[in-house]
Amino acid sequence: MILYGWHSVKAALENPARKFHRLLATENAVHRLAESGVALPVAPTLADPEEIEALVGPEAVHQGIVAEADALEAPAIEELAPTRLVLVLDQITDPHNVGAILRSAAAFAVEAVITTTRHSPEASGVLAKAASAALEHVPLVTVPNLARALETLKDKNVFVIGLDSSGDTDLATVPLRAPLALVVGAEGKGLRHLTRSHCDAVARIALPGRIKSLNVSNATALALFVAGGRIDQ
Amino acid sequence: MILYGWHSVKAALENPARKFHRLLATENAVHRLAESGVALPVAPTLADPEEIEALVGPEAVHQGIVAEADALEAPAIEELAPTRLVLVLDQITDPHNVGAILRSAAAFAVEAVITTTRHSPEASGVLAKAASAALEHVPLVTVPNLARALETLKDKNVFVIGLDSSGDTDLATVPLRAPLALVVGAEGKGLRHLTRSHCDAVARIALPGRIKSLNVSNATALALFVAGGRIDQ
Repeated sequence: MILYGWHSVKAALENPARKFHRLLATENAVHRLAESGVALPVAPTLADPEEIEALVGPEAVHQGIVAEADALEAPAIEELAPTRLVLVLDQITDPHNVGAILRSAAAFAVEAVITTTRHSPEASGVLAKAASAALEHVPLVTVPNLARALETLKDKNVFVIGLDSSGDTDLATVPLRAPLALVVGAEGKGLRHLTRSHCDAVARIALPGRIKSLNVSNATALALFVAGGRIDQ
Repeated sequence: MILYGWHSVKAALENPARKFHRLLATENAVHRLAESGVALPVAPTLADPEEIEALVGPEAVHQGIVAEADALEAPAIEELAPTRLVLVLDQITDPHNVGAILRSAAAFAVEAVITTTRHSPEASGVLAKAASAALEHVPLVTVPNLARALETLKDKNVFVIGLDSSGDTDLATVPLRAPLALVVGAEGKGLRHLTRSHCDAVARIALPGRIKSLNVSNATALALFVAGGRIDQ
């Protein structure tokens, strides 16, 4: 996988579980690494901004640093033992959205993010950049079958709440308890029927304005804030 | 300006204040418009998906519909009379982020969004799509000088709170009152020094996890929820 951008790469370098293949950095970025005091598990190769751009594409804000590394090993769904809060993504496809969601998950101390193997973006490049350093802090568990994964969580006493703008109860008042799984649906489509049928309840965020649904990463950040605050009380 | 995607274009067609130059739609989209019962201020021109893609670019999810229209007229900052909540963007540059923020602003009944004329993306294309229908619902006021705009708001008795992950008070407990302006800084850079010096207070969102800042649109959605909820009490 490819990691680029200062925060993403620095956090990966500081993570002893990351296995690196190579690290390319501009002269400025090499100085910045030296000044930051990060112990480097791999020697940086000096590169021009153009060489880095050739690897990451012209749209990528790479900040002069790119790494090739192995994906982190994540636990299997059966190995999870949630005590507070996990987040489940039902085929969210946009890597900017999934990256921002992972960043919020790390900010709200989520124990694991669970996604489907198919119809999910790769944990690399754009997603990793948008995630800031979150890939290093939150296990990303992929499952072939989301309905079965929700059953596995329920067997572990996890309470499962779906989030959907069409939900008929308000997340601020729906009964909640820890350990809790919040399940978020795809942009536009929302939760799949089978996913919805495996939730203990489906709730919405009450919105006072003219528009009744939010960008999926914004909705997820709010849901983590509201639900996390309630189960911690 | 260019508008594409079903929600954005439909909402614009339903807005009597929008002046259209032309409307291009695929056969499917023409049927969908007819079924939706929207009164069309401009006759649609049948177009192939390829013709639409040529206008909006290959990355754009256009859903078979694109319109060329005038930008909406917005009030001048001096004409605003806030009673509850306005949102101020300090040089947020990514059109996906600004679009998502406008959508949240419409969802949380924000009275106006204020941005700088320079260093802000155009209210068109990607931004309009990410905003869903929000451009039709929230006035977007552009100002040449943000510090002067904040002074103008203060003269109208508006209380000004900056939002920054380095803020030393928690948005959940900082004194607030309506009418309130929330000021949000750029991705990575945060609030500019001059902007910050024009705020009555600078607050952060308390985050319990390993990452201490959020994507700017996620942070803004949370701030609107928290601050909006508090001033409505």
